[in-house]
Amino acid sequence: MTGWRATVLSLFPEMFPGPLGLSLAGRALEAGRWSLHSSNIRDYATDRHRSVDDTPFGGGAGMVLRPDVVDAALADTADGRPLVFLTPRGRHFAQADARRFATGPGLVLLCGRYEGVDQRVIEARGCEEISVGDFVLSGGELAAMVLLDACVRLLPGVMGAAESAEEESFSAGLLEYPHYTRPAEWQGRRVPEVLLSGHHAQVAAWRRAEAERITRERRPDLWGAYQSSGGVAAVVNRSAAP
Amino acid sequence: MTGWRATVLSLFPEMFPGPLGLSLAGRALEAGRWSLHSSNIRDYATDRHRSVDDTPFGGGAGMVLRPDVVDAALADTADGRPLVFLTPRGRHFAQADARRFATGPGLVLLCGRYEGVDQRVIEARGCEEISVGDFVLSGGELAAMVLLDACVRLLPGVMGAAESAEEESFSAGLLEYPHYTRPAEWQGRRVPEVLLSGHHAQVAAWRRAEAERITRERRPDLWGAYQSSGGVAAVVNRSAAP
Repeated sequence: MTGWRATVLSLFPEMFPGPLGLSLAGRALEAGRWSLHSSNIRDYATDRHRSVDDTPFGGGAGMVLRPDVVDAALADTADGRPLVFLTPRGRHFAQADARRFATGPGLVLLCGRYEGVDQRVIEARGCEEISVGDFVLSGGELAAMVLLDACVRLLPGVMGAAESAEEESFSAGLLEYPHYTRPAEWQGRRVPEVLLSGHHAQVAAWRRAEAERITRERRPDLWGAYQSSGGVAAVVNRSAAP
Repeated sequence: MTGWRATVLSLFPEMFPGPLGLSLAGRALEAGRWSLHSSNIRDYATDRHRSVDDTPFGGGAGMVLRPDVVDAALADTADGRPLVFLTPRGRHFAQADARRFATGPGLVLLCGRYEGVDQRVIEARGCEEISVGDFVLSGGELAAMVLLDACVRLLPGVMGAAESAEEESFSAGLLEYPHYTRPAEWQGRRVPEVLLSGHHAQVAAWRRAEAERITRERRPDLWGAYQSSGGVAAVVNRSAAP
């Protein structure tokens, strides 16, 4: 079958599919809308100890994954799909990347562990270096899962109407307005009256104002970009922001 | 035992521990340095259909998790630990948050699905709203795993020397310099000569210059904060950046 194809190179391939085997991504996996293969980088070691790493040139703590071993793993999966190396040194992953990757043939994801991966193989193979945020994880595997989940939900036929609404909202360059459901009064807290009014234009205006307020309060960076764009269709992509 | 305690409230509790049961976090879990309990929000539904959500007031696609059901789930775990709601509407999670949470008693993590959670219960319970990035996931579960992994590796006794180096480097407010290991020449690509020189001060200067170059090229926001701080100890925390 010819769906979107993901290959993950990791020292912990047994982490996959893990959470991606359940819920939205899991149903899409079962339905064949995408496929997921995880390979163990250690399978590409060439010595009898199956060693994959060595000490860093220049000194320092930690171990670095060897270029020859990682290259062999990448060579074994290379078929024109984009190569992504998950690393805190990368550009920040954003929704625009998910859209871009989702329209392609799939991805090969390289997950680092230890101190990192020899930079020569990243450059030689033209890996895109991507980070999911300004925090340190114990490895790239959870970052890869986050990236895959964000992509897979955008594949044709994966989302129903319930899920697709959020994407549209987020794409406006503002954080989402708050949500309310029944009961209209709960523990003395009433839903904002305008939402009960049935007046569509007023509801839309209230939601826009709330989205703007929350973005201004919580994300000055997004708010700045939104204002610069004149308040319309600023794509949420921090790496492209000034 | 009295280690760091995590409770996750989710509609897919079977996703946990998942990848957190392996590698660094998994070994720490087995060693009792932290504990992980996941609860099904659906167990707190009160009607015979076990419904947890309802349509949003004011109209629109998607379903919203009910305040009474979520409140009952939170009430059942409330014991003074910080409450975190994973949502793209939140502040960005950063390493400073991981440090803060890791020094506390643990966390209660609320994972949204569908369109979101009724805002009244988030406010009534004083949940901290946190996002892992500017992308949309199919639910909060992977974000919760990311957050937990970042916290758990900081708990006492979890990291060895190999893992702790990265944390120190990242904390300087710059992206990390590139890493190299054997062989010194690979496919015609040589390791930068300075790293083979054995001259510690020159190695340190080269690494600093590379970290600055990469940060400038890839993360103008971090670079600006680093420059404003005079180039020292700018904590990597985007939400605190101008």
